[in-house]
Amino acid sequence: MWASPMVIRVEWALRLKGVEYEYVDEDLANKSADLLRYNPVTKKVPVLVHDGKPIAESTIIVEYIDEAWNGGYPIMAADPYERAQARFWARYAEDKVRALYAIFSTTSEAQRKAAHEAQQCLKTLETALEGKKFFGGDAVGYVDIIVGWYAHWLPVVEEVCGVSVVTDEELPLLKAWFGRLLAVDVLKAALPDRDRLLAANKARREQVLSA
Amino acid sequence: MWASPMVIRVEWALRLKGVEYEYVDEDLANKSADLLRYNPVTKKVPVLVHDGKPIAESTIIVEYIDEAWNGGYPIMAADPYERAQARFWARYAEDKVRALYAIFSTTSEAQRKAAHEAQQCLKTLETALEGKKFFGGDAVGYVDIIVGWYAHWLPVVEEVCGVSVVTDEELPLLKAWFGRLLAVDVLKAALPDRDRLLAANKARREQVLSA
Repeated sequence: MWASPMVIRVEWALRLKGVEYEYVDEDLANKSADLLRYNPVTKKVPVLVHDGKPIAESTIIVEYIDEAWNGGYPIMAADPYERAQARFWARYAEDKVRALYAIFSTTSEAQRKAAHEAQQCLKTLETALEGKKFFGGDAVGYVDIIVGWYAHWLPVVEEVCGVSVVTDEELPLLKAWFGRLLAVDVLKAALPDRDRLLAANKARREQVLSA
Repeated sequence: MWASPMVIRVEWALRLKGVEYEYVDEDLANKSADLLRYNPVTKKVPVLVHDGKPIAESTIIVEYIDEAWNGGYPIMAADPYERAQARFWARYAEDKVRALYAIFSTTSEAQRKAAHEAQQCLKTLETALEGKKFFGGDAVGYVDIIVGWYAHWLPVVEEVCGVSVVTDEELPLLKAWFGRLLAVDVLKAALPDRDRLLAANKARREQVLSA
């Protein structure tokens, strides 16, 4: 599903590894027989099919890609402690992402509250960037892949909802990392077109608010 | 915290690996300076401190233990696909655990609904046991460690709440696995006393319902 930030994680991991893949679009309003067969438990995208075997859940797929093509670009650090830290922050971000969705489904005071809560969570996440270029250190790593969608999607959400979340004043390290991440060619090349994403999110916002 | 099913995961992983450890009890109503220092982000137990470095989140700690003491008992399979499947089921169980908690905080019709929902989730989880002794195959593995607390805690919850969830009729594979898991000496030895757990859960249930 072209507008899904969970799908981009898998494409980024494959591209960083230099693995060729076929992208199959999925209509979530009318799920394909393949999706239901490959991911009968959660019926969600993304699903990676490798040698005929399906793997579901984007964070798990990214770890799988790192382990299955273990000779290439290292997504995870070799050190067990660094790996645990990366998993911790990825998990933190996954648990807190609801705060970001709340901005999308609210207006006025409730939206301001949601934006503030999202900002607090991101401030905590930002501490993992201190003194580093990327969450992974000098190069893009696991956490960068998991939360990297913020860089492209959050400014769109901010524009659609009329709020500011990631500002130079409040989240300077995260804001600077947005710029660095989007300058990585292999990541940039996989991103959906911004205007198309904006239009889709505007339509989705109207739909959510009128529901 | 002796009654925490998340803490038992860490103790089980350490015991399976044969790693000696010091268990430090934590009063969650009055969190220690150590807990706040070692896990400032979520302030939850368990936290493993290894060589002075803290690791938080039980599922992540278990993977860390497997990687840091990688010569001993294999918690995760070596094969990337099997690892991904194990992580998928662990994640599924983590996401669905709210259905189990709902039994605890409800009564009558709402409780029956919660118990039914929990049963449906467990039926899906049970499919991962088909044709196997443990989720890990012939031996206790990652998923067994993550969901193994069901075997000791769920019968207590059933007794406290007056519901049946894991029955021979509805969940035969899971029920049989309960028995096999609790027969593993190294796991059994770490379990909290059943009567004490029952009393604590009765008190907790009363507290939750009167809140």
